[in-house]
Amino acid sequence: MRATQYQGDKTFNVLEKEIPEPANGEVRIKVAYVGVCGTDVHIYHGMMDKRVNIPETIGHEMSGIIHAIGKGVSGYAVGDKVVVRPLDDRKVKPSDKGFNHICEELKFIGIDSPGAMQEYWNVPAFTLHKLKEDTDLKLAALIEPLSVATHDVRLSGLVAGETAVVLGGGPIGLLVAMVSKEVGANVIISEVNEKRIAKAKSMGLNAVSPLRVDLVEYVREQTEGRLADVVFEVAGVQPALDVMTEVAGIRGRILMVAIHGEPKPVNLFKFFWKELKLIGARVYEKEDYEKSIQLITANELPFEDMITDVQPLSNIQNVFENIDNNPDGMKVLMDCSL
Amino acid sequence: MRATQYQGDKTFNVLEKEIPEPANGEVRIKVAYVGVCGTDVHIYHGMMDKRVNIPETIGHEMSGIIHAIGKGVSGYAVGDKVVVRPLDDRKVKPSDKGFNHICEELKFIGIDSPGAMQEYWNVPAFTLHKLKEDTDLKLAALIEPLSVATHDVRLSGLVAGETAVVLGGGPIGLLVAMVSKEVGANVIISEVNEKRIAKAKSMGLNAVSPLRVDLVEYVREQTEGRLADVVFEVAGVQPALDVMTEVAGIRGRILMVAIHGEPKPVNLFKFFWKELKLIGARVYEKEDYEKSIQLITANELPFEDMITDVQPLSNIQNVFENIDNNPDGMKVLMDCSL
Ligand SMILES: NC(=O)c1ccc[n+]([C@@H]2O[C@H](COP(=O)([O-])OP(=O)(O)OC[C@H]3O[C@@H](n4cnc5c(N)ncnc54)[C@H](O)[C@@H]3O)[C@@H](O)[C@H]2O)c1
Ligand SMILES: NC(=O)c1ccc[n+]([C@@H]2O[C@H](COP(=O)([O-])OP(=O)(O)OC[C@H]3O[C@@H](n4cnc5c(N)ncnc54)[C@H](O)[C@@H]3O)[C@@H](O)[C@H]2O)c1
Ligand SMILES: [Zn+2]
Ligand SMILES: [Zn+2]
Repeated sequence: MRATQYQGDKTFNVLEKEIPEPANGEVRIKVAYVGVCGTDVHIYHGMMDKRVNIPETIGHEMSGIIHAIGKGVSGYAVGDKVVVRPLDDRKVKPSDKGFNHICEELKFIGIDSPGAMQEYWNVPAFTLHKLKEDTDLKLAALIEPLSVATHDVRLSGLVAGETAVVLGGGPIGLLVAMVSKEVGANVIISEVNEKRIAKAKSMGLNAVSPLRVDLVEYVREQTEGRLADVVFEVAGVQPALDVMTEVAGIRGRILMVAIHGEPKPVNLFKFFWKELKLIGARVYEKEDYEKSIQLITANELPFEDMITDVQPLSNIQNVFENIDNNPDGMKVLMDCSL
Repeated sequence: MRATQYQGDKTFNVLEKEIPEPANGEVRIKVAYVGVCGTDVHIYHGMMDKRVNIPETIGHEMSGIIHAIGKGVSGYAVGDKVVVRPLDDRKVKPSDKGFNHICEELKFIGIDSPGAMQEYWNVPAFTLHKLKEDTDLKLAALIEPLSVATHDVRLSGLVAGETAVVLGGGPIGLLVAMVSKEVGANVIISEVNEKRIAKAKSMGLNAVSPLRVDLVEYVREQTEGRLADVVFEVAGVQPALDVMTEVAGIRGRILMVAIHGEPKPVNLFKFFWKELKLIGARVYEKEDYEKSIQLITANELPFEDMITDVQPLSNIQNVFENIDNNPDGMKVLMDCSL
C-alpha cells in the first residue's frame, strides 16, 4: 500500500508498505479522499514538531470505505462508507465532566497518532460514523471541517431571523456562514482577501471587506441598529478581536473559534457594558457530526464549490507547496487511490 | 431640607434647600440610609466629571420611606418602606431587544441625574421596590449592591454542588460570595488584602491570598481536579484576568463584573481549549432586586458584617476622605436624617 509521511522540515515522502491488520476493536478503512486542513499546513511548516511523532502520517479530514474488520467490532460491515471523528477520548476522567471531546487527555488522531494520508488506515471503531450508500465521498471529506461549523453554530444558539457576522472567510468561515444561513439567519462575512470575497459571493453568501466598508456601520444599517446577535471569530487576527466587541449588539454572543497562540488585548469594557458573551468552541461532538452528515447527504448547500482542487495523494509534496503559494484556494482534497 | 452636592475637585458641600414637590409619576422619599459605592468614590476623585452634571447630588445605594405621592402614581402610600432601582430606561428602543437594564440610552440615577445623598429625594415611581414593614432600613441600603451580586450569580447559572471562585473580596466580591454560598456552591474567595481576607473569614467565608498560595493548585485540590465551574472577576486587575482562564475548569463560566477601562490581554487559547464562556454582567434586572429583597428580608446571611461604619450625611466630606485613607473598610452608610 501507499502511505505518506511528514519527515519534518517541510518535507513529505511517499512509501510502499505492507497493509496492516486491524487490531482488536479497530477497522481498516480504504481511504477515499483526505482534505488538507490549516493544521496540516502548520505541521508541514514545522510548527507542531513537538507534538507530532516524526516521521508520521498525518491527515484527519477524510472519507472512505471499510476494508476489514478487527475482532470485537460490531455494527459495521466491509463496504460501508464511513468518516472518522478523529478524537481519541479513551483517557477521559470524571473531572472532564462528560465533555469527552475536550477532555484533558484527548488525543487527536492524525496529529497525536497516525492519520489518513495513506491508502489504508486502521482506526478504533468508536470513531466511525456510517454514511448512506449513495454518499459522494468527495463531499464526505468535508464532514470533519463542516462539523467544526455545526458545533460552533449550535453552541452559539443562533436562531432564524438573527444576524450572524462571520469574521474571516476561509474554509471554516465559509462553512460557518453556510450552516448559519441554513439555520435561517442573516449572514454577513467579513474578509480582507478579495478573491475569497468573490468566492463567497459566487456561493450566494454576503461578504464585505472591512478595509473598504465600515463593518460596524454596515451591520448597523442591515439590522436597524440591533447589530450582530452572533459573531464568529474565525480570522485569528487582532483586527477581528478589535471589531468583534463593536459589531456585537446588546447581549450578543461571540464564538471564539480561531486559535490565538498568545494572550491578546480584548475590550472587556464592552463585555460589561453590553453584557456580551464569549463562547470558546473546539472541534465537535457526536451530534455535530450527525448534523453534518445530514447536510452532506441532503447536498442542498454549495459544498461542491468548497473543493477547489483534487490531487493524487502521491503528489503530496507539491500539494503543500502549492497551498503556500496560493492563499486564495479553499479546500484541497487528495485522492488516496492515486 | 439638607442636601449634599459634589462640587468637583474632591469636594462636597452640604446645603439647606426647599423640599421639592414630586412631579407627575414621581414620589418623594425621605431617604433613610445611603451607602457609598466605588462609583461614588470615582466621582469624588473627578474621574467622571464629564458624565456628572456638577454641582450634583450623587448616591444610588439607598433605603427610605415614601413621604409624598405625585399625580398619576398608584400602588404606593405615604409611609411605605422602599428602595430605588436607579435605572431610567425611558428611552429604550427596539434594538435594545428588551434588555432595558442595559439599553443604549440608559440613564443611571445618581450619576446621570440627581441621587440619594439628601434628606428628601424625588424619583419616578417605576424605579421603586416596596419592602416589608419590619425591614431593617440599614440592611435595605445594601439591596442595590446585593442586586449586582444576585444578577451575576443568576447569569452564571451557578447551581448547588458547583465550585465558584470569586476573584476580589471587596464589597461586591463578598456579596457575590454570600449569594453563591446561599445557592449551595462551594465558594473560594481570592483576595490580596489581608484585612479583607480576615473580614471574609469572620463572615464564615473561605478566603485565600493568591500571593501566599498557588490559587490554581488550591482549587484543583478542593475540586478533585475539576477546577472552578464559575469564576467571578470582581477584582479589576490584570493578575485576576491572568488567573481566571487558568482556574476555570472545562466549560467553566467566567463572569466579567469588574470594569476594565481599556483593552487588556486575555488568554483566548484557553477559551478555545477548555470551551470557556465569558459572560459580561452589568447592574441588575427587576428579578434580581426581588431576589435581594427576599434575602435581606430573611436576613439569614451575614449582611450586618458588611456595614463597617455609619456616619451622619452632614459628615460627607469626611466620609469620602476616610474611605481614601482606609482601603480595608467594607460598606459605609450615611444616615440622611443627621
Ligand atoms: N475551534 C476549532 O476547533 C477549530 C477548528 C479548525 C480551525 N480553527 C481555527 O479557525 C480559524 C480559521 O480557520 P481557516 O482554516 O478558515 O483559516 P484561514 O486562515 O484560511 O482563514 C482565515 C481568514 O481570515 C481572513 N482575514 C485576515 N484578516 C482579516 C480581517 N482583519 N478581517 C476579516 N478577515 C480577515 C483571511 O484572509 C483568511 O481568509 C483558524 O484560526 C483555525 O486555527 C479552529
Ligand atoms: N458589573 C457591574 O454592574 C458592577 C457594579 C458594581 C461594581 N462593579 C465593579 O466590580 C468591581 C469590584 O467592586 P468593589 O466595589 O468590590 O471594588 P473593590 O476595589 O473594593 O474590590 C476589589 C478587590 O480586589 C482585590 N484585589 C486586588 N488585586 C487582586 C488580585 N490580584 N487577586 C485578588 N484580589 C485582588 C482588592 O484588594 C479589593 O479588595 C469593580 O471593578 C467595580 O467597578 C461592577
Ligand atoms: Zn482540521
Ligand atoms: Zn453602585
